[in-house]
Amino acid sequence: MSIITLTTDYGLKDHFVGALKGKIISEYPEVNIIDISHDIDPFNILEASYIIGAAYSSFPKGTVHIIGVDSERNKENQHIAIQWNDQYFIGADNGILSMLTQKVVPQKMVAITIHDRLHTDASDLDVFVKVACHLSKGGLLNVIGKEIVQLKSVTGLQASVANDFNSIKGNVIYIDHFGNVVTNISKKQFLDVAKGRPYEIVMKTKNIKTILPNYSAVATNENYAIKNYEGEKLAIFNEAGFLEIAIFRSNPSKIGSANSLLGLSYRDVVLIQFKN
Amino acid sequence: MSIITLTTDYGLKDHFVGALKGKIISEYPEVNIIDISHDIDPFNILEASYIIGAAYSSFPKGTVHIIGVDSERNKENQHIAIQWNDQYFIGADNGILSMLTQKVVPQKMVAITIHDRLHTDASDLDVFVKVACHLSKGGLLNVIGKEIVQLKSVTGLQASVANDFNSIKGNVIYIDHFGNVVTNISKKQFLDVAKGRPYEIVMKTKNIKTILPNYSAVATNENYAIKNYEGEKLAIFNEAGFLEIAIFRSNPSKIGSANSLLGLSYRDVVLIQFKN
Amino acid sequence: MSIITLTTDYGLKDHFVGALKGKIISEYPEVNIIDISHDIDPFNILEASYIIGAAYSSFPKGTVHIIGVDSERNKENQHIAIQWNDQYFIGADNGILSMLTQKVVPQKMVAITIHDRLHTDASDLDVFVKVACHLSKGGLLNVIGKEIVQLKSVTGLQASVANDFNSIKGNVIYIDHFGNVVTNISKKQFLDVAKGRPYEIVMKTKNIKTILPNYSAVATNENYAIKNYEGEKLAIFNEAGFLEIAIFRSNPSKIGSANSLLGLSYRDVVLIQFKN
Repeated sequence: MSIITLTTDYGLKDHFVGALKGKIISEYPEVNIIDISHDIDPFNILEASYIIGAAYSSFPKGTVHIIGVDSERNKENQHIAIQWNDQYFIGADNGILSMLTQKVVPQKMVAITIHDRLHTDASDLDVFVKVACHLSKGGLLNVIGKEIVQLKSVTGLQASVANDFNSIKGNVIYIDHFGNVVTNISKKQFLDVAKGRPYEIVMKTKNIKTILPNYSAVATNENYAIKNYEGEKLAIFNEAGFLEIAIFRSNPSKIGSANSLLGLSYRDVVLIQFKN
Repeated sequence: MSIITLTTDYGLKDHFVGALKGKIISEYPEVNIIDISHDIDPFNILEASYIIGAAYSSFPKGTVHIIGVDSERNKENQHIAIQWNDQYFIGADNGILSMLTQKVVPQKMVAITIHDRLHTDASDLDVFVKVACHLSKGGLLNVIGKEIVQLKSVTGLQASVANDFNSIKGNVIYIDHFGNVVTNISKKQFLDVAKGRPYEIVMKTKNIKTILPNYSAVATNENYAIKNYEGEKLAIFNEAGFLEIAIFRSNPSKIGSANSLLGLSYRDVVLIQFKN
Repeated sequence: MSIITLTTDYGLKDHFVGALKGKIISEYPEVNIIDISHDIDPFNILEASYIIGAAYSSFPKGTVHIIGVDSERNKENQHIAIQWNDQYFIGADNGILSMLTQKVVPQKMVAITIHDRLHTDASDLDVFVKVACHLSKGGLLNVIGKEIVQLKSVTGLQASVANDFNSIKGNVIYIDHFGNVVTNISKKQFLDVAKGRPYEIVMKTKNIKTILPNYSAVATNENYAIKNYEGEKLAIFNEAGFLEIAIFRSNPSKIGSANSLLGLSYRDVVLIQFKN
C-alpha cells in the first residue's frame, strides 16, 4: 500500500489538515495517509527539517512526504520534488530540504512545472497533492518537473569540530514534548572525533560526564529503586541519532525539564570536550 | 473506499475520539475515517459550522460527515441526517447544519428515528455511528429517519450590503491557527457588489486598499527580499472563499498575528467601502 | 482488517508518533492504526490506565493496544503482553495493566523475550511494534514471550465502601477536556451498595442529590429553554461507567468547568451518602 506523510505548521484546530486529506483521498482513494506533525512552529524551516529528518527513516522505500511549511510559491521559493534515500519529498525550495539532504546527495531533484495544468484557483497544496499522488502511484519525477542540479543553500546551525580535534561545539536545535533538549551533534560525528577518549559535556550551568545507552541507565546503583532517579540530568543519543540532554522521567509541569532545569534554550551552545 | 469524517469538540487527550473510531470500525471495518477537527471550541455551533463548511468540498461525493458538537438529543435538538451537495451530514438540529446550508437547499433531510432500535445505554454517538455506517455503505436516508422539511433556524452573523450598494459590512467569524482573521464576507458577495469599483477595507484601527491573489503578493517591490515583508498586514480570499485579514508569515508567538496586531476579535466589524 | 491502537505520552508535535506509525506500517502494511491518545500526562500511569480502560471496549475482539507510557525496559519494568477480554495489550509492567485488569483476570500474560532477536539499536517501541504486528496477524503470545502468572501490583486510588454500607468514598481520578471531573466510583459499585436507597453526593463545597441519565436531563422544567441551564452542576455515570461531576455545556474558558467552579482537583474526595 502506498504511503503519503504530512508535515505541516497548520495546527489541528482549523480545517486545513482535514481538507488536505480529503483532496489526497479524492485523487488516490487507496493511499495510506500518515501524520508526522502539524504542530511545527509556524514558518520555522529549521524545526520542519529536524522533524522530517527524524521521522523519514521509519518509513518504507517509495514513501512520499509532503512538507507544508512556508510552502507558498513566490519569486524566491519554487516548488520542488526530490528523491532521496529511496523516498520522495515535496515542498518549497525554502531551505528545509537543503538542510535535510546536506550529508547525502539526492538521487534526483526537479522543479515542479505542473502549475499551469491545474485549475486557476489551485493552491500550493493542490499542486503538492497532485505531485504526491502521481509519485505515490509510481509516476516519474520527470513527468511533473524539470530537473535541477542544486537546492537553495541555507546554512542552518552546524556542529563544528575544533582545529585540534579536542572538542565539538554544537547547539540546541529542538526542544521536545518532554522538555528534553536535542543538539545538532550526531552520534557519528561524536564517534569519529572521540576515538575512544574520555570526554565531558559542558553546558551553560552543568556538566555531564557520560552519554548513556538509554534513559534508565541513569539508575546506576542497583540498591536504589528507579523512582529515586527521577529528575536526574542525563545525556543520550536519541533515536534520530543526535545528542540529547534529558531529565529522567521529565514531566515539564511537575518534575521540570532539561529545558527548564538546566536553562538550555534554542540555539544555546553545548560543548563536548575530549581528554587526551 | 467509503469515507466518514469527524468534526467534534472532544479534544484529543480524552478517550472519546479513539472510542468513536473503534465503534465505527467495529461496524464497518473497511471505512476510511478522516479527522477534520476535534478542537472546536466546546459547544460553539458557529465555529463548527465554519470548519465543516470550509472542509467538506475537498471530499468526494458520498462522503459522510459526523458532527459531534452539542450533539446530545434533548427536547430542543433532535438528531438529523441530511444530504447536501451530494454528501451526507449527521448531527443534532442545533443550528450547525442550518447555518451551513443557508445558501443551498439540502437534497433531503430526515429526523433520525432509530433510537429505539439500539441498546438502552446507547449514546448519542452510538446513534451517529449507526447512521453514518448505514449511509456510508450506500443505505438510504428513509431507512433511518423520517423526512422533515426544515431545520431549526439559527441566525448566525451575516455580512450585509448597504442599501446604496456602496459598502459591505461583515464580521470576524473565525481566528485561525496563525492568528489570521476570517470574516463572513464571501468572494462571490464581494464580486457581485464591487462590479469592478475601487474599494477600501476599513477595520478597527487600520485600512487595507487591495485584496491580494495570495500571501506572497504582499512583496510588491522586486528589489526587496520577501523576508522584508514579514509582519505586513494584507487581505486575501482564503481557500474557503471568505475575506481574510492576515499578517504575512504570521507566527503568533513571535511576529504577532492579525488578531493581536490589528486588535481584531471574534464578532468585530470589517467594512468594505466602494468608491464610485 | 486488523487494528492496532496507540496510547502514549509522546505529544503530537514531535516525530515520535509519526515514526512509530511508519515502523508499524513497514512491518504490516494492511493494518489499521487508530490513535487513542498521545496526550497522556508524561509518565502518569494512572491516567494511562483510565484512558485505555475507557476506550478498549469500543474495539472489536483481537484488537492490539500498544501503550507507550513509561515504557522503557529496566530492572523494575519488564516488557509484557497480555490477552484480556479477548483483546491484546502491550506495554511495560509498570502498573498500567495491573490497574486495568484488577477486576477481571487476564486470559494469558507473557513477559516479552524477543529483545535479543532484534538489531542492537532496537528501541522499546521497536519491540512493541514487532510484538503488536505478530499478534495482529494472529500470532500466539507464546511465540514472543514466556508465560507469567502475575503483574506487578500497584495500588491506585480505589473507591471504598464504608463498613456500615451507608457510604462510598471515591476520588477524582481524571479531569477531561471539558473540565468535567471523573471519579473512581463505578456504576456497578453504586448499584450494588445503593439497593434503591436515596443518596446524596457530597463534595468539597457542594452537594448533588441525583445522578442523571444524561446531561440534558438537568433541564427539569419543560417551560424553560435548555440554554437557561448552562452552567448548572450535575452528576452522571459517563460512558466509561464512572461517576462524573459535570457542568452543563461546560466550556472551560467561558462558562467554567466542574474542575474550576466546584474546586475539585485530582485525588479530591467525592462521597456518596445513602439514607435508610
